[in-house]
Amino acid sequence: MTDFSKTREFFDLPKGVIYLDGNSLGPLPRNAVDRMRHVMEREWGAQLIRAWNQSDWITLPARVGARIGRLIGAPKDSVTTGDTLTIKVYQALAAALSLRPDRRKIVSDNGNFPTDLYMAEGLIRTLGRDHELVIAEPEAVADAIDEETAVVLLTHVDYRTGQMHDMEAVTRRAHAAGALMIWDLAHSAGAVPVDLSGCGADFAVGCTYKYLNSGPGGPAFIYVKPALQETVEPALSGWMGHAKPFAFDLEYRAAEGIERMRVGTPPVLHLSVLDAALDIWDEVAIDDLRRCSVELCERFIAGVEAACPQLELASPRNAAERGSQISFRFSQGYAAMQALIDRGVIGDFRAPDIIRFGFAPLYVTAEDVDKAIVILDMVINQRVYEEARYQTRLAVT
Amino acid sequence: MTDFSKTREFFDLPKGVIYLDGNSLGPLPRNAVDRMRHVMEREWGAQLIRAWNQSDWITLPARVGARIGRLIGAPKDSVTTGDTLTIKVYQALAAALSLRPDRRKIVSDNGNFPTDLYMAEGLIRTLGRDHELVIAEPEAVADAIDEETAVVLLTHVDYRTGQMHDMEAVTRRAHAAGALMIWDLAHSAGAVPVDLSGCGADFAVGCTYKYLNSGPGGPAFIYVKPALQETVEPALSGWMGHAKPFAFDLEYRAAEGIERMRVGTPPVLHLSVLDAALDIWDEVAIDDLRRCSVELCERFIAGVEAACPQLELASPRNAAERGSQISFRFSQGYAAMQALIDRGVIGDFRAPDIIRFGFAPLYVTAEDVDKAIVILDMVINQRVYEEARYQTRLAVT
Repeated sequence: MTDFSKTREFFDLPKGVIYLDGNSLGPLPRNAVDRMRHVMEREWGAQLIRAWNQSDWITLPARVGARIGRLIGAPKDSVTTGDTLTIKVYQALAAALSLRPDRRKIVSDNGNFPTDLYMAEGLIRTLGRDHELVIAEPEAVADAIDEETAVVLLTHVDYRTGQMHDMEAVTRRAHAAGALMIWDLAHSAGAVPVDLSGCGADFAVGCTYKYLNSGPGGPAFIYVKPALQETVEPALSGWMGHAKPFAFDLEYRAAEGIERMRVGTPPVLHLSVLDAALDIWDEVAIDDLRRCSVELCERFIAGVEAACPQLELASPRNAAERGSQISFRFSQGYAAMQALIDRGVIGDFRAPDIIRFGFAPLYVTAEDVDKAIVILDMVINQRVYEEARYQTRLAVT
Repeated sequence: MTDFSKTREFFDLPKGVIYLDGNSLGPLPRNAVDRMRHVMEREWGAQLIRAWNQSDWITLPARVGARIGRLIGAPKDSVTTGDTLTIKVYQALAAALSLRPDRRKIVSDNGNFPTDLYMAEGLIRTLGRDHELVIAEPEAVADAIDEETAVVLLTHVDYRTGQMHDMEAVTRRAHAAGALMIWDLAHSAGAVPVDLSGCGADFAVGCTYKYLNSGPGGPAFIYVKPALQETVEPALSGWMGHAKPFAFDLEYRAAEGIERMRVGTPPVLHLSVLDAALDIWDEVAIDDLRRCSVELCERFIAGVEAACPQLELASPRNAAERGSQISFRFSQGYAAMQALIDRGVIGDFRAPDIIRFGFAPLYVTAEDVDKAIVILDMVINQRVYEEARYQTRLAVT
């Protein structure tokens, strides 16, 4: 049984802050500062170019990928890291389309994070053929998948509402239609149990700066189902994905397996922070985390609905259909969130009217939830946000 | 006049090391460690999600880009940073091809760094049309450019030999044929004077972990000529390149100007190290640096040729045709370089037979050059490398 009274000590959280925005940017792991100093001074500084071998930088993307793989049900040698989630979406999409050359549809939903949709648009425009991006309502995705669908691209947990797709059912539906399935795990990895092997997903991608606490702009990850790996001819065929990067051949030849999804020189400094941040998962069982996250979310919903009936729950009421965040709709959401932040309760706002609160049991406690409800009650019912609207600077540009 | 006796203090170089591999990985700037600690503890740690505004992370790619722009003759608002050089090559190439839809040839040379060629191959394969990658000898590039050429993609300074293309002449030739010109400045930025505006280049890309000292896997940069910026429809159309990233529209609309070449969430930690590393350029005039670099290179060639006639100069003898590195061909180059490294002279080896030495006047002195020649003499003429071959572990895999 994971002891969540101890995991909080892993993080360096400011005093007086109740941090309910780990779904946007996770907090600083204490060990990451020393790790970074070590990598900068003892590896880069002292070993210089030799560190690629002496400190084994060259295999860091795979080593870190393997640690993430254990959190998302990915088998050995099926996850690598680097780049941004946006780039990894492009890699997965381009690979999927090349594996279904006779099909023209990419199916997604309007709960997908926009960058995923934008990358699909960009890829379609670049291909210059007659591909089509179909954007369904989240509930209607299964019906939108048909025999013309090449690939289904969905974010598992909706960034606005926390609504969670049934990964197994949708993957089964995609496969039944002969389509491939890509899951974006941005709001899932480190937040909810994921079983990529079990559900048979073809590709998965995700970022690490949310629930995996790797810091702003931390590296992304990509999973390719082992059975597909050797069939994928990478669109972003960079030298680090070459079978022999240091032979400096003029022609590309894809590396074996997941290594071919590497692109350029890996971001060693940031990968090292991610590696340090992943240490906490050696102590945490993801099922325990999920249980605790559901308790915190239920407690928060009950408290907020009792105190602030004017807020409308935007997240599914059924915990099994939610990720690890709770969202409410409120017309004055932007100003209200500013007032909350001024009072130490940090969540965030998503246009047009959603206030979001993420619950990461690694550092959020039941006591935090109770305090947040008291402060939310004060802000909303004393209409403090009406002042906040004018006092705070525009947080989003 | 730049005082290069002081610039060395900016770096934390290990004692006893003569570092002639800054063309592969620049050394650690002393201020980068404190800057990183500040960003991790005071920004990420203390401000958490608020740091995107409070510490202005959101504009960091542009601010750092502007500092690099000053080193490469780029006008205001024409350079942004992020991703890897490999990704930036793809962006520039895809943009160029979309601007020349009726042309099918990409012209490059066999002195280009392989990842540039691989990315061209991957793009061509992804497009699935009848594009062709023409790989000429460096001397024959101008002749390979014709009326079917959409874009010329060259690395300004050859990573193997240091041979430098005439940027202005080749760009003029490309334009005369109606083609676009992309320069890869990996071995140029911070090493030789570059005048992107003056030569009329359409795109330029580069990495920052060599002569700009940003550390392993540091962010890349991309330049787009101002006159072209509004015509480029990005292939990698990520949310950070959207006109309103935080409106979360479902449809992509490119940001104005160079901002549209941003892709995903910027690597804030690593961009901050780069920003710190760029401080030294406030003290350095690039023309002074070039003069000093040429002096160091000439001194090295003269000394090595006198001591080790069995080494064959692979770099151009004319300093005006070289970047900031000197390469020699030697059949036992790999083992010889291992022996040199064991004795504190760090250069590197590039298959099949090139030993490379980079000369960065920011931290390499004439005294270093003289010492390096003495050690090279010992290694080569006492055939120390014959032992080294068996003693050292394989550095490249």
